[in-house]
Formats: sequence, structure tokens, C-alpha cells
Amino acid sequence: MQEYRYERDIKKGDHYDEIVEADRSELLSLQFRLIDRETPVVIVVSGMIGAGKSAVINLLNEWMDTRFIETHVHRPPSDEEADRPYFWKYWRRLPGEGETGLFLGSWYTQPWLDRIDGNISGKKYESRLEDIIRFEELLASDGTLIIKIRLELSEKQQLKRVKRAKSLPAYSWRIAEDDMDNGYPFGDKKKLTDEMMERTHYPHAPWYRIDASDPHRRNLSVMHLLTTVFEEYLQRGGPDLSGITPPNGFPPATDYLGQMDLTPTIDRADYTVQMAKLRKKIFSKAWKANHNKRSLVCVFEGADAAGKGGSIRRLIRALDARLYRVIQIAAPKGREKTTHYLHRFWRRIPRAGFVTIYDRSWYGRVLVERVEGYATVEEWKRAYAEINQFEKELTDAGIVVLKFWLEISDEEQLKRFRAREVTEHKKYKITEDDWRNREKRDEYRAAINDMVERTGTGYAPWHLIAAEDKKIARVEVLRLVHEALKKM
Amino acid sequence: MQEYRYERDIKKGDHYDEIVEADRSELLSLQFRLIDRETPVVIVVSGMIGAGKSAVINLLNEWMDTRFIETHVHRPPSDEEADRPYFWKYWRRLPGEGETGLFLGSWYTQPWLDRIDGNISGKKYESRLEDIIRFEELLASDGTLIIKIRLELSEKQQLKRVKRAKSLPAYSWRIAEDDMDNGYPFGDKKKLTDEMMERTHYPHAPWYRIDASDPHRRNLSVMHLLTTVFEEYLQRGGPDLSGITPPNGFPPATDYLGQMDLTPTIDRADYTVQMAKLRKKIFSKAWKANHNKRSLVCVFEGADAAGKGGSIRRLIRALDARLYRVIQIAAPKGREKTTHYLHRFWRRIPRAGFVTIYDRSWYGRVLVERVEGYATVEEWKRAYAEINQFEKELTDAGIVVLKFWLEISDEEQLKRFRAREVTEHKKYKITEDDWRNREKRDEYRAAINDMVERTGTGYAPWHLIAAEDKKIARVEVLRLVHEALKKM
Repeated sequence: MQEYRYERDIKKGDHYDEIVEADRSELLSLQFRLIDRETPVVIVVSGMIGAGKSAVINLLNEWMDTRFIETHVHRPPSDEEADRPYFWKYWRRLPGEGETGLFLGSWYTQPWLDRIDGNISGKKYESRLEDIIRFEELLASDGTLIIKIRLELSEKQQLKRVKRAKSLPAYSWRIAEDDMDNGYPFGDKKKLTDEMMERTHYPHAPWYRIDASDPHRRNLSVMHLLTTVFEEYLQRGGPDLSGITPPNGFPPATDYLGQMDLTPTIDRADYTVQMAKLRKKIFSKAWKANHNKRSLVCVFEGADAAGKGGSIRRLIRALDARLYRVIQIAAPKGREKTTHYLHRFWRRIPRAGFVTIYDRSWYGRVLVERVEGYATVEEWKRAYAEINQFEKELTDAGIVVLKFWLEISDEEQLKRFRAREVTEHKKYKITEDDWRNREKRDEYRAAINDMVERTGTGYAPWHLIAAEDKKIARVEVLRLVHEALKKM
Repeated sequence: MQEYRYERDIKKGDHYDEIVEADRSELLSLQFRLIDRETPVVIVVSGMIGAGKSAVINLLNEWMDTRFIETHVHRPPSDEEADRPYFWKYWRRLPGEGETGLFLGSWYTQPWLDRIDGNISGKKYESRLEDIIRFEELLASDGTLIIKIRLELSEKQQLKRVKRAKSLPAYSWRIAEDDMDNGYPFGDKKKLTDEMMERTHYPHAPWYRIDASDPHRRNLSVMHLLTTVFEEYLQRGGPDLSGITPPNGFPPATDYLGQMDLTPTIDRADYTVQMAKLRKKIFSKAWKANHNKRSLVCVFEGADAAGKGGSIRRLIRALDARLYRVIQIAAPKGREKTTHYLHRFWRRIPRAGFVTIYDRSWYGRVLVERVEGYATVEEWKRAYAEINQFEKELTDAGIVVLKFWLEISDEEQLKRFRAREVTEHKKYKITEDDWRNREKRDEYRAAINDMVERTGTGYAPWHLIAAEDKKIARVEVLRLVHEALKKM
């Protein structure tokens, strides 16, 4: 945590305007260099009531090119936000490449308020700070420039400013929001704020204190802070990641796939009876879960031709179409390419009460993107922790995460590939990629075992499904879905 | 309005499954041809309670490739939706290219319910049907394949089905939604429904009645209807637009620009005083409008170098950053390219209580896209009506729409271009395009006059601002914004 202060002398009147006019063009051209570099910029502006957060935000919009800036204000979550994980509210507001997000009130606001109001325990508060740290780590690792500013006043100055603010005509409509954001941070509140900043101050997401007692000096401090930080970022070619512990060593994982027994089968009559029973149970349990506002996320991964599609079709047959959504994850397109790889999944988190089925998922990062080299080694190595954090946030929000890996033997896969080539409406399912993937089977196997070892968490375990017999795999999937729904 | 019925004989038992299995691959391959053609598909499934809407939706998800399908169910609007124009709820859910949106409950549901409950007058209801017709016209003109299905039962059959549904375990949680959708459409309700279908039945958005008394025949009717409609669409190479009246003739518009007086000026002292006064008033009036949940949309269009950016900067200086957003409209990117040109604007409609400032806007369609040939003649000609409808929906939702055209003389523009080339932080503002546009000044002039004539509506008039003197233009913009805010 550091103080930033514009040190040059500011004389009264025009002198200030001259400095601004002269230095503004530097800030603006740095902004354009960041736009050229397609860098997302996150600026958190927090501070005491009356310290001029709003004035600073206004100036940044005026000095920089406001067309690439979006300002976000803390408000109570909308019902669409309240129905989803805490961070969803921010995920959906993150700047894309070349964009700047100004956060007046941020992910820090709610935990701070909750702690002050005694709504959460110290332990819970700690864990939310941890979530914030992970969140900022993830953004910075992916190239986001993060600056966090706190505008500070002495107690005396603050009381004076509040008094003046109260005399402004629009005061009554504004104060509510300000209050919500920061209250009057003296005594315990100040201590909590200082500790929060201390705990979350990292080279890739630093906090800067700015003395806000003199508005002109405050404004110039902010301008020169941004100029300095932008310049350093550009020279460094990215965020300062020295504060992020690189992913730990990669001892070879257990051969989970090798330990699977692929021989079990089920006869047709038994299959038909069991599936009918499970469908009926799942149908009503899913409505009950909807009623209880509990969501289920099902992730389907598996070897090519292992029967993901067929299992999904059997699963949706058991669900009311009003309650589920199947999401196919192909290569990213459009805006998705310009944001963090998890962004595509963040956006599609269902509202409470629904079933979302992912036909392939965020695990592409540590499977195909790893094996084919679409992700760098650093990227896929840190993805395990990012994914675990993402799934933790889902489960923290009461969402149940079921992950299936459907496995078949080499020989069975070959048989199915050949069969697909001769069935008219399955031809589109077999591509050259599928044949090529077979040749990399060993590399995929290592990636899969790593994935199971590193992301098989207590809150979101992997279910390895023997799919050599398609029917028994389908029964198993429906059985696990039913088990999960029963508890929702 | 037409009835669609699968005419072949269906025997009991396996025979049905055989027909489905045989015909499903045709439906699936047609879906993939539509995906290759990047066609958005909208399927509305409505019908009496107990007629099997949900079952049909489920089957479509099962028969077709569910990864390209999204099912939308009628629910009361979320608070984010309630805060915006009626159609926003659907705009955000429209399928992209190659995607299919299944609507179980649709834009028809709310007007129907409101009319049945006597919440809206016959006249208001008529106007909402008109909005629906315009909405579907717009989608179809842009290539969307629209099919609207109504599943029908006799009164006796329906009562029987409801009785059976009530015996199902999840009934109590499901019935509420079904009720909301369609109630028991006999007598007056049936009459209203029939009239609604009759009024909104067009070749580009046809309604099909399907007899739902026998579930197997119902399912096959739906499958074969879709197969037929998909095939016809593909053969025709697009929707059947024969029911859409092409835009009427284009008599030359009045030369609005030529009639403008560009000579007025304002002296610096007067400017400073007036701007300070207006800023103060706008600041508090914008908070009041926020308090009253009223939104303002400001559209800035104008000649290159006419001072749009400068005017916007002066305007935002008068506003609290918490209350406004400036949106820059560059060439469409990512997903935006795959949807209707208005989609980019639909998505960004602010929640109630905010000011959204568009630095260039949807008018690009009838300006740069027209002159440069990026839009076809048909596209830009029909855009006037589409834009008027869009702005009508905004104003219907209580949003005030202010549109500014900033005009300068040819000579003044040349002077400003030359000045930009020598000012360091303005260099990025001048490109070869700007010089090229000057050569097409006559074509742009015709396009601007047409735009003013055709989209200068009573609810969203154009304000032509003489910007030869930048200062007087800024005062005029702030004056008009203040006038608008005063009434909000």
C-alpha cells in the first residue's frame, strides 16, 4: 500500500488548468496505446464520503476518451444478480480489450459492509477477501491492468464536506448511495478499511492512497498516478506478476483412466425399466429444485464418440424443457475472444432454480488447449486453480456442480468412428480432428489424469463413467443426477 | 392462419418410433443446413394448457441438435427487464446466426393476458399488436425464419388433460406458469386468441394450428411442419417477404441543412456564465430524473469535426458520472456482426433513471452505411421505419430521446481538419476516411436531409445545431438537455 501525491506546486486559478491541459494529452495518448495493445483496464475508486470519488470519476471520463470507458456504481444486486454467484455481478461488467472499467464501489464494497454490520463472521470475511485476491490474480494473469485508488480525508475535513454536500439540491437522492459505499470510516471502520487494503495490496493490483483534502492536488495526483502506472505497464509489457505464486510442481498424476473397469454392461430390459424410473423421479425432483431455487450444473467431458451427446439427450428427456439449457462449447467467437476464457462461462451461469448442461466446458483449457498448444504452458498450468476457484464460487452460491468424464477403450472408439462414417445423420459428427486426436491419445490421457487429480475437489468431484456400454453409462449419469437433485 | 396435420396412418407402438427415427435425420440435416447458412430461427410454441407445449419443446430439443437451441419460457419480467422497454426482454433473447430460439410463451403472452384481465384498452391492445407485427417484420426482413405454432384441444379434451396433470407429483409448481401462459382459452378467450392469430399471421411469420388431441400425431405434425417450413425457406433462400409492404417512394426531402443559419455566435464571457448555470441545473435535474426512474437517451450525430466529442465532454461535465454512460459506435464487432444492426443498441438500453449518450448511433445505417454501400438499398430504405419503431418503443417506455445533428460549413470543416493535423493529442482524430468523406459531401447531405425528414418524429424530433461556433453549439445542447430533464 502506498501513498501517491502530486508534488509540484499548484498556484491558484489558471495555473491548474494549464497543468491539466498540458498533461491531459499524455494520459490520452497512453490510453490509446493501451487500446492498441488491447489491454483491459480496471480502476477502482473508493474513498471516504465527500472525498470526491464522483468528481474524480467525472474527470477521468473527461480527460480520457470516454467512449472506451464504462463507469460502474455500487448498487444493491438486481434480482438477476442476486440469483447468481456473488462475482457474477462483476463478471458481466468487466472491461473487454482496450476498454476501461471505472468502479465506484466494487467487489470490496459488499464484504466490507457485511463485516461492519456484523452480517458475516471474521472467518467468512477472510474467505471473501481470499476470493477477491483470486479474482484479481486471475484478471491480472490474463493481462488486465488493475489500479485501486482510495481517496482520503481527515475526520475534520470529512465532516465539513458532508455538511457542504447536504446543502446541495440533489443531496437527498445521492447520499443514500454514498452511505452504502463507505459510511464514515473512522475508528473501527478505518481500521477495517486499512486492513482490507493491506491484505489485498499486490504488485498486480496495488492500492494507492491519495490525499483528497485539496481538490486540485487530488485531481492532479490521480492523473499523474494513472500516467505513471500506464507507462510502467506499457514498458513492462503487462502487469507486474511478481506477487503471484506460480502453480506448484507437477508430479505425475495417478492413472485414473487406467484404473477404470470398462467391462460392466446392462441388459436392455433392465435398462428400459431403470431409465423409466429415473426419468420419472428426475422430472419431479427438478421441479422441486426449481421451487427451492437450487441450480444444477452438469459438465460433460469425455473421449470422442464416448456418447456425451447420447447421454445428454437421455438426460434432457427426463427434464422439463422449461428447466434446462444445453450449452455447447465450440471455439470462442466474437466478443468471447476478447475476454478471459472463463468469461464465456461466467456469462451463462443460470439463474437460481435451473439445470445447465455443458456439452464440453471450461475444461477445454486443460485438455484440447493444452494438448494442441492453444494455451501457453503458463496459461493451462494456472487454469487448474482458476477453475477450482470458479467452481467454488458456483458451489458457494448453492449451485451443485456435477462433472462427468465418459471413457471408452481405444478399440471401442475406433469401432464407433467407423460406424459414424456410414450413418447418414451422424456423418457430421466425425471430422478429421477426431482422427487426429486419436493419434495424440497418450497426451490427452496425461491431460485427463492431471485434470481429475487437480480439479477433483470435495465440492465438485469428477465422476468417471465407464461408457464402453452406452446404456450403463446413461443409467449411471441419470442415477448421479437424481442423487444430486434429491438433496436440492 | 392454417392447420397443419400429419396425414399418414400411425399404428400403435413401435411404428411411431420407426417414423420418428427415419424422419429425424431429415430434420437434423435441415437444421445443419440452416446453421451453415447462418440463419436465426424463431419458433413460438403456444397452446392450450395440457396440449403438450412442454412435451413438444422437449422433443424438438431431442430431435434437433440441442446445442444450437435455446428454450425461453414466459416469466414475469425481472427487475432489469421491467426497467426497460417491453421488447428488451425479447431482444436480449433473440437467437444469433445459426441458432434456434424456442419460445414457450412469447411477446404475445403479455398483451393477451393484459387484454383478458382488462388491464389495457382495446386501442392500446391494438397498438401492441402493431408493435408485434413490426417486430416480426424487422426480424424476417433481416433473414430470421419465424414459425408460430398453436397446439389445440377441444374443451372436453382439455379438461381431461388438466385433471390428469393435476395428479402428477410436480403439478403444484408447474401449473402456475402454465396458467399464466394461456389459461383455459374457451369462449371470449378463444375468440381473442383466434383474432390475435388472424391479425398477426403473415407469410414471413405464419401461424400454424396443430391438433394436439393425439400426442403421436401432434408430434409428427410438428416434425413435418418444421421439415416443410425449413425446406421451403432453404429453397426460397430466405423468408417469404411477400406480405411486407416495401418502403414507400422517396420524393426528395427538404434541404434542412441548407436552411440552417450557421452565423450565430456567443462571446466568451456570456458562454462561461451560461454554461456554469446550465451545468448546475442539469446536475440536480439529472438526479431528480434518476429518482423518478426516468431515462434520457442523447444521440449525437454530425459532420466530421463538427464538435460532437467536445459537446459530449461539456455535457458529461454537467452530469454525475454515476448517472451517465457514453457509448461509442464503431464498426460492429464479434457477436454484433451476427445479429440485426439494431441489436447492438437494443442490448445497451439503460435501466430506468439513467442518461445514455450515443456518440454516433443507429443512424449509421442511413448515413455511412447508405453512402458507402455497406447496407443494401433495401436495407437502408427499410431502416427509417425500423428506427422510428425502435424509438417509439423507447419513448413508450418513458425514455426521452434527444437527437442532435451538429452542422458546420465546408470551409469551417476544412479549417478544423488542418488544425487537427498539427495538434498532438488530436492527430488520432483525423484519418484518411475523413478526407474521403468530404469528397462525398453531396451524397451525405442528401442522406442527412432524408434522415431528418423520415425520422424526425413527434416523439423523437431532430435538433439541428449550428456548430460553426463551437461555443454556441455547446450552450444549445445543454439548454435542450436541461429542457428535457426539467420535464422528467
